[in-house]
Amino acid sequence: MFRLQRKKYRDQEEMFLGEGLRTVRELLLHLPGPDSLVALFLSPDAEALLPEAEAYRGKVFSVDSADFLRLTGTESPQGVVGAFRQPRFSPVDELPVTGEGRMVVALDGVQDPGNAGTILRTAAWFGADALFSGPGTVDLYNPKTVRSSAGSLFSLPHYSVDSLTDELERLKQNGYGVLCSSLEGRDFREFTDWPERKVLVVGNEANGISSGVLSLADRLVLIPHGRGGVRVESLNASVSAAVLLDRLML
Amino acid sequence: MFRLQRKKYRDQEEMFLGEGLRTVRELLLHLPGPDSLVALFLSPDAEALLPEAEAYRGKVFSVDSADFLRLTGTESPQGVVGAFRQPRFSPVDELPVTGEGRMVVALDGVQDPGNAGTILRTAAWFGADALFSGPGTVDLYNPKTVRSSAGSLFSLPHYSVDSLTDELERLKQNGYGVLCSSLEGRDFREFTDWPERKVLVVGNEANGISSGVLSLADRLVLIPHGRGGVRVESLNASVSAAVLLDRLML
Repeated sequence: MFRLQRKKYRDQEEMFLGEGLRTVRELLLHLPGPDSLVALFLSPDAEALLPEAEAYRGKVFSVDSADFLRLTGTESPQGVVGAFRQPRFSPVDELPVTGEGRMVVALDGVQDPGNAGTILRTAAWFGADALFSGPGTVDLYNPKTVRSSAGSLFSLPHYSVDSLTDELERLKQNGYGVLCSSLEGRDFREFTDWPERKVLVVGNEANGISSGVLSLADRLVLIPHGRGGVRVESLNASVSAAVLLDRLML
Repeated sequence: MFRLQRKKYRDQEEMFLGEGLRTVRELLLHLPGPDSLVALFLSPDAEALLPEAEAYRGKVFSVDSADFLRLTGTESPQGVVGAFRQPRFSPVDELPVTGEGRMVVALDGVQDPGNAGTILRTAAWFGADALFSGPGTVDLYNPKTVRSSAGSLFSLPHYSVDSLTDELERLKQNGYGVLCSSLEGRDFREFTDWPERKVLVVGNEANGISSGVLSLADRLVLIPHGRGGVRVESLNASVSAAVLLDRLML
């Protein structure tokens, strides 16, 4: 089984895996440069499905279907796995902290890889500047996160940070308002103006935002129920993030 | 392994499984009546975690941890599985088709159970009246759909229909406008008024909305990129649905 299935080796080798036809196709589409693809493993069936692979001759390995499952350790790899180099972005302390309309998204203990990847993808769609991943958040290079990010790992600068509060304090010093998505917040429709530079913090699926981060919040923001909608307790974390990114960025 | 893991038996017995502590807790919270719980299987470790189970004495079975995995066929069941009766809603042809502010959500080939369940949950949050599940859509009682629906299966009337076009035609005859989320649509900000009664159709993750349904569409609606956001091709299906439900219902 690929060692890159494990975070330890992904960190060490600064690489990650993309699994499945669609995921690999999206990653290739956003490839920062040819060096970002290390190797592509295709079963005989898959070769015809991924004509893009032609362009990477020399890095493409044909793998017997029977060996595939053993190699990848996943249930339905569709016979397509790519090994990619993790993108490098400017150091986090060189991020532009001036200018209007800036948006940073911060994940504070988001544990579901589907949520983390979907938030990355949504933030890229709406034009966020960067994403911070704080302690307790799932590894952004987890294969399931990679899948749900739909290639946006290569295009949205993202940083795994040791202390989210340190980063938020630095952003606040640079004029950013810290907005936390929270069920205890105020209906977002009640706010008539928003800070020009914003960090949107998304908390843990079960426990919300951590107390250290909450103490730095400038606003707690609630997405209200629609009429007659009080029939479920909460929204999915990636759904809340999407609704607020739409409202704040469009 | 529980037969209810398979759609055939779920349909036949009109029951479904909820797996994991959080999912079972959410389902119990929304239980239409005590009869909706058929049985609750708990490992010894789980009993202390689910004090709510006390109220269902006689239906709670203690299961040896070692047997649990074999019984449920899932990898991390947390020692909590419930068997529930599928809720019954008014027949689909008795749905209220008059009144203002009505919203129906229709799934046209949504295949990912996480997406289908999340859309159900989001539709319940924003106060939709019903959800239609058309051909090619994942079973709403798939255990993964159940998990992501967060209990909303009990509160949002939902109907699995043999022909989505037939249902849409009937709704159109009753004054509903058919809105399709589509990358080929018009920026939703360009529409200044919306029909009072609406069906929002969400299509297949890879192929979008089917041609039969498209031919009935009154509007194709696009969620635009934010400034500088053209770095990913599409939004996740449940994210698109959420953004449009928010914009149409709040």
